[in-house]
Amino acid sequence: MTTPLHEEKVFKDPVHKYIYVQDQTIWDLINTKEFQRLRRIRQLGTCFLTFHGAEHSRFSHSLGVYEITRKIISQFERNAYVDWPKEERLLCLCAALLHDVGHGPFSHSIEKTFGTHHEEWSCRIVLGDTEVNQVLRQASPTFPQQVAGIIAKTYTHEIVVSLVSSQLDADRMDYLLRDAYFTGVNYGTFDLERILRVMRPYQGHIVVKESGMHAVEDYLMSRYQMYWQVYFHPVTRSAEVILHKIFQRAKHLYESSYSFRFMLPPLLNLFNQALTVDDYYLLDEALMQTALMQWSMEEDRTLADLCSRFLQRRLFQYITLERIDDGQMERLRAQLERFGIDPAYYLEIDFPSDLSYDVYRPGVHDEKLPILLLDSKDRLTEISRKSEIVRSISGIHMGKYHLYYPQEFITKHLSQFDPDLQKLLST
Amino acid sequence: MTTPLHEEKVFKDPVHKYIYVQDQTIWDLINTKEFQRLRRIRQLGTCFLTFHGAEHSRFSHSLGVYEITRKIISQFERNAYVDWPKEERLLCLCAALLHDVGHGPFSHSIEKTFGTHHEEWSCRIVLGDTEVNQVLRQASPTFPQQVAGIIAKTYTHEIVVSLVSSQLDADRMDYLLRDAYFTGVNYGTFDLERILRVMRPYQGHIVVKESGMHAVEDYLMSRYQMYWQVYFHPVTRSAEVILHKIFQRAKHLYESSYSFRFMLPPLLNLFNQALTVDDYYLLDEALMQTALMQWSMEEDRTLADLCSRFLQRRLFQYITLERIDDGQMERLRAQLERFGIDPAYYLEIDFPSDLSYDVYRPGVHDEKLPILLLDSKDRLTEISRKSEIVRSISGIHMGKYHLYYPQEFITKHLSQFDPDLQKLLST
Amino acid sequence: MTTPLHEEKVFKDPVHKYIYVQDQTIWDLINTKEFQRLRRIRQLGTCFLTFHGAEHSRFSHSLGVYEITRKIISQFERNAYVDWPKEERLLCLCAALLHDVGHGPFSHSIEKTFGTHHEEWSCRIVLGDTEVNQVLRQASPTFPQQVAGIIAKTYTHEIVVSLVSSQLDADRMDYLLRDAYFTGVNYGTFDLERILRVMRPYQGHIVVKESGMHAVEDYLMSRYQMYWQVYFHPVTRSAEVILHKIFQRAKHLYESSYSFRFMLPPLLNLFNQALTVDDYYLLDEALMQTALMQWSMEEDRTLADLCSRFLQRRLFQYITLERIDDGQMERLRAQLERFGIDPAYYLEIDFPSDLSYDVYRPGVHDEKLPILLLDSKDRLTEISRKSEIVRSISGIHMGKYHLYYPQEFITKHLSQFDPDLQKLLST
Amino acid sequence: MTTPLHEEKVFKDPVHKYIYVQDQTIWDLINTKEFQRLRRIRQLGTCFLTFHGAEHSRFSHSLGVYEITRKIISQFERNAYVDWPKEERLLCLCAALLHDVGHGPFSHSIEKTFGTHHEEWSCRIVLGDTEVNQVLRQASPTFPQQVAGIIAKTYTHEIVVSLVSSQLDADRMDYLLRDAYFTGVNYGTFDLERILRVMRPYQGHIVVKESGMHAVEDYLMSRYQMYWQVYFHPVTRSAEVILHKIFQRAKHLYESSYSFRFMLPPLLNLFNQALTVDDYYLLDEALMQTALMQWSMEEDRTLADLCSRFLQRRLFQYITLERIDDGQMERLRAQLERFGIDPAYYLEIDFPSDLSYDVYRPGVHDEKLPILLLDSKDRLTEISRKSEIVRSISGIHMGKYHLYYPQEFITKHLSQFDPDLQKLLST
Repeated sequence: MTTPLHEEKVFKDPVHKYIYVQDQTIWDLINTKEFQRLRRIRQLGTCFLTFHGAEHSRFSHSLGVYEITRKIISQFERNAYVDWPKEERLLCLCAALLHDVGHGPFSHSIEKTFGTHHEEWSCRIVLGDTEVNQVLRQASPTFPQQVAGIIAKTYTHEIVVSLVSSQLDADRMDYLLRDAYFTGVNYGTFDLERILRVMRPYQGHIVVKESGMHAVEDYLMSRYQMYWQVYFHPVTRSAEVILHKIFQRAKHLYESSYSFRFMLPPLLNLFNQALTVDDYYLLDEALMQTALMQWSMEEDRTLADLCSRFLQRRLFQYITLERIDDGQMERLRAQLERFGIDPAYYLEIDFPSDLSYDVYRPGVHDEKLPILLLDSKDRLTEISRKSEIVRSISGIHMGKYHLYYPQEFITKHLSQFDPDLQKLLST
Repeated sequence: MTTPLHEEKVFKDPVHKYIYVQDQTIWDLINTKEFQRLRRIRQLGTCFLTFHGAEHSRFSHSLGVYEITRKIISQFERNAYVDWPKEERLLCLCAALLHDVGHGPFSHSIEKTFGTHHEEWSCRIVLGDTEVNQVLRQASPTFPQQVAGIIAKTYTHEIVVSLVSSQLDADRMDYLLRDAYFTGVNYGTFDLERILRVMRPYQGHIVVKESGMHAVEDYLMSRYQMYWQVYFHPVTRSAEVILHKIFQRAKHLYESSYSFRFMLPPLLNLFNQALTVDDYYLLDEALMQTALMQWSMEEDRTLADLCSRFLQRRLFQYITLERIDDGQMERLRAQLERFGIDPAYYLEIDFPSDLSYDVYRPGVHDEKLPILLLDSKDRLTEISRKSEIVRSISGIHMGKYHLYYPQEFITKHLSQFDPDLQKLLST
Repeated sequence: MTTPLHEEKVFKDPVHKYIYVQDQTIWDLINTKEFQRLRRIRQLGTCFLTFHGAEHSRFSHSLGVYEITRKIISQFERNAYVDWPKEERLLCLCAALLHDVGHGPFSHSIEKTFGTHHEEWSCRIVLGDTEVNQVLRQASPTFPQQVAGIIAKTYTHEIVVSLVSSQLDADRMDYLLRDAYFTGVNYGTFDLERILRVMRPYQGHIVVKESGMHAVEDYLMSRYQMYWQVYFHPVTRSAEVILHKIFQRAKHLYESSYSFRFMLPPLLNLFNQALTVDDYYLLDEALMQTALMQWSMEEDRTLADLCSRFLQRRLFQYITLERIDDGQMERLRAQLERFGIDPAYYLEIDFPSDLSYDVYRPGVHDEKLPILLLDSKDRLTEISRKSEIVRSISGIHMGKYHLYYPQEFITKHLSQFDPDLQKLLST
Repeated sequence: MTTPLHEEKVFKDPVHKYIYVQDQTIWDLINTKEFQRLRRIRQLGTCFLTFHGAEHSRFSHSLGVYEITRKIISQFERNAYVDWPKEERLLCLCAALLHDVGHGPFSHSIEKTFGTHHEEWSCRIVLGDTEVNQVLRQASPTFPQQVAGIIAKTYTHEIVVSLVSSQLDADRMDYLLRDAYFTGVNYGTFDLERILRVMRPYQGHIVVKESGMHAVEDYLMSRYQMYWQVYFHPVTRSAEVILHKIFQRAKHLYESSYSFRFMLPPLLNLFNQALTVDDYYLLDEALMQTALMQWSMEEDRTLADLCSRFLQRRLFQYITLERIDDGQMERLRAQLERFGIDPAYYLEIDFPSDLSYDVYRPGVHDEKLPILLLDSKDRLTEISRKSEIVRSISGIHMGKYHLYYPQEFITKHLSQFDPDLQKLLST
């Protein structure tokens, strides 16, 4: 089923030094046009507007997830662990490589506006009439279904799913290291090699030897820090807000039969919610940025202004609020309207939130698989029961409200606002 | 003339850790739309197809060149060197920041096909009706002219020009470190901090204390290695070749009045060789990639095929030749034509070449400024006269010929080629 | 009072890249024989027996503490903060450099056995008839007293003391980074440059801008991890235990008038608790290791065995206990004695403990200075009131009991132990 | 013959991240007292007096050489290269681990004075009545002889010898990386992983695929730079000079029946040139430093002064000379004597020299094995025939003469020297 390559191939990678490809199937998947398309999708969306180094693509992340998975499995094989289902190797590697193949440009904002979902698209690409599908079918007729199952987390073997998608999976491990590397922050570093060494297949789960608990704590702290320092950085969110407003506005105009001066064809089916797999291939970040550039010259002033802001990085200002005073927000919207600014597109309250580590609550739907420690007496314990650190970050919910608005406008009119709003906005 | 910022601003940078902005002028320049546009131009063109990490932009490189220049000047000021013209500080910083502002997408191929030149464009942007020009004029009415002079290397003070453009300048120092970081190779690393410490302004030149000679050797070796391992990598060149062929073909079609199904408007003036500064702003890498994607669906089979190859990374194969046998090449072209393949677009001989360090030959036009060592008795000596290493790499001209061609075609028809060509192409 | 050096001097340092010396006084202090002696004292005592890279000396750490202090002060001066008492600069630097000058070899064990105290010795060296004292007096007649005051934390300016000794001081910042570098673990890394940028002198304290809270959290987590992964590693503690037993045994023998075959003269005054500053100079790690080597050939079998164990790294085995059962320990001691093993030297219960961050409890004696956050409205808040992470690690007291004993002996006699002890020791 | 360990053991290593031990024999060798003794011998002798981080031991280097050898062999096995003699694996690993086991403290100076030789001692320890010998014999009765043969380069299989000792061996690869890491310079870094990937066993040699030539060039340049920047640093050499003078003086005094106040017993047999393997075990760097400390209090003023200089780092000053003027040196010696300074101990001309890469000259005795490139047509070529860089550094012989002398003495008397000497010494 799997043909080893005559000679191992390598990719130079800044995070893992080298990425090793040993199977013809993996090599062929990398060379499909759908996978190559990931070179044209940034891994971190708008984050490069905050951290200018964060220009890396989903292509390199996908290779990284594959490589970590390969290392884990190779360790399992070297130690001949009986609980590891050897026959799942190639399937795991394919799923690791392809788990993000359905990501589009600026996924977050697009998905929010148009209701698409990248995991669904990953499955559609795996199952549809694509080069990826063709390569998988060569490996085995059931491979496309199985890979899609892993991506959708419906595959029967939890152990396989959890390598690619759990609280301690190859996906998270790669993106923390990679995003830390490219942004230049050093929050995301943890001892990958040590974590790989303490992972074990055990009774259908991937577990961690108890002696590795501190390394896992360190990994979870990295995650916590990356969320608050990088992923939820208010400047990044400001760009997200603008992008979302752009798509909302464009959609609204389209639905109002506004006559666009510029409309790249593949966007039509996005607006019509009728994207095919072939359309989706064309919908990369280059196309989206070209659309933004074109729309910055549209006649609709709101759309044009928002697009210019994004391209020229004139983002919204923000202030932090402990809580939201609805009456105050109502008055703010009214003021904006009085000065001819549409609050639907120029005001946003954002509340980022992520639990760094969710304690496992059995029975709760769509749970992420928890991290289990294996002690010297072969007992399994969920990590937060042993680690005070994990327990403490499990519950932390540090999100604060941020209010986003166009600074230069406010500055101009501030003196005419009511005193309470003046106080709010003058910090 | 220069207003210090109330509070220093910083950018997180993976190469220099932080980039420090201390002047309002610099801050304003960074926020111009022309400078922000550099975020949409990759630093290394097609190199990401060989080294997937090399997705960084000219934006981050430009900040890096600025930062190194700032560090050098700050060292000169801290040591109160009398040979340093203090009044040139802000001018130098502006020129460092802006030296690449005229770079377009895939500069190499575009310039080769359409005869544009990025340094000219930098000057046009500095001098034209742009936000950059406006910010510079606020600093001083003569600033735009002076900055353009430094970029064009016509500015009267050699010492200022050489910080930004010489054999050991802030530009080269940043790109070696940065390109090494993002590709993940470790050839480009050298001791920047030490080199900065041994640089001195001296009698109108930037010179290096003799005790720093080994650090400079190391820097020159890094450069040598980066050229051969990264910049001239045959896979990168293969992508360059294809890109060049694409532009040649599109130009040819345009000039032959071919009716394009797709033509993004800003490209028209490129084809007409009538680009304005406003057009140039629109001409970023997103637009160019979108054009490639559109052209991959053109009816002209040559254009469509070449574009698909580039986007899907189905590059030309290459073989290395010690020298070119013209007769043999002639026969190869003939064979290709016989099988319906146009050798003008499907065959290329490439000969990359760079001298890692040019010995200074006074009187020779357009010389790069050499590296001068300052000994303990205040004598200046050109470095290659003291360093055998530098002498040895000065002359090295390792370039080899590479022949690029579409492998799958050759494989198909190889048996019908003449024996000599079969032997050549079957390696 | 302070003479700047004609030309800045540098030390190459793996952690800070370079260490910059700009004052004659600092240069002279480094060249005293008392400071050079720190080259012969390992920074991490017995830790090299666990992490073989941890062979670095207190000399390099002391330079590092000096360098971080220099960077902090230089930042304060560059920003011209009015709350920074400029005249304390050189004093601070001297205290930073000298704070560990009184450290002896294997301080922990020696101090425990002989009641010496390294901070007292630092003061004695600063105040006594030494080269260090002479250099300090040249800077100012009151300098020795002031430096000693900072070391003893009795100096009147809290702001000066807290740079060298507080919850976020140059000492801790250097040792976390340095020990992480030399052991090779990556727990100790945090963003030093960012922390330095958010430190401010404010109303007699060193405080941290609130926006830097996450960087401080990261630093405190590093500290937490380094304690549990490195400093309290049970193998390191095992070596500590043996060393302590060695000194106890040697002291006991000396007090029992045992006739030593080998006794290096400087040790006599240690045993007599009559060390002079001149004796102390001779008491370096080389001498101590030579003594251990000599004693491994003593006739007293206990002393000889313990020394051989240390030198050949045949350390005690350990088991982890949740709590101590006194009766069980009593029986264990009795068993050991029955088989001719003296439990006073071959059994130890160890309970390592450190609070990663102590919340400030005013009025409590000998408090470490807390970390204060300065918000945008100039209010100070103790960090654990804002950070859930800090709050959670503040209270963590993960110490567990470890029981240390000579494995090979136990293995030999285990079958003759009572069943409860057999169970205890057979894990 | 070789028992795999039940569970792989690891050492945390700053250079290789982890060192993996998989064989009982290797584990047992590491735990012998002779191997543990290497913890008490610094890898770089006096270099820590120039680069304070260079305090690492031969223990960690020896583990590193073992680890690189293990990685090479494991690559050979993974690829199932037929030219690799699989049965030599454990033997190779043992030889790699033990090749430096005979190193003594400050080998260079001691060997120069007393005519010992560390490779001979390695063989004596391997063959003598030692724990090392015992462990080797358990693996196979002929193992001690074979390991000694590899160390002495007399073993019949060149391929085995060359892994441990050639122009591109595990020894050099580890020390360049390790010494660069601990000193903090970045000259020694090269792409180890890539070099390992291009090494091949081939017809009884270890060769390198031609595509890896640039990586090997980079390694050779690292070596060149490390020699001139670190190993031959004039301050390090100055400490070497003093150390050599100390041993010369002590030897002279001993042979002149001077009555030493202090003489540590193991030194007697060194002076008598009658060291046994048991004596050698005692002769570590701690003992040697303790001797220097004791001798700094000897009555012989020359010995006492030289020892104080070394311990307090009051080294000799140096000047660089293009060539030596014998007459001038004669006059200098005479002057020194006139002022009561013995030139035999207070003056030294030093000429460091190493060829970074020796071209192989067949037939020349004691040749280092050259680096052979394997091209795609299976032809072998010595690297300097293909690489201009290698050719250029092969011949470089940059050594300059350095004259070492006690500065403070010269300063005092300089005005009374003849004008020529005044000029020489006043730089």
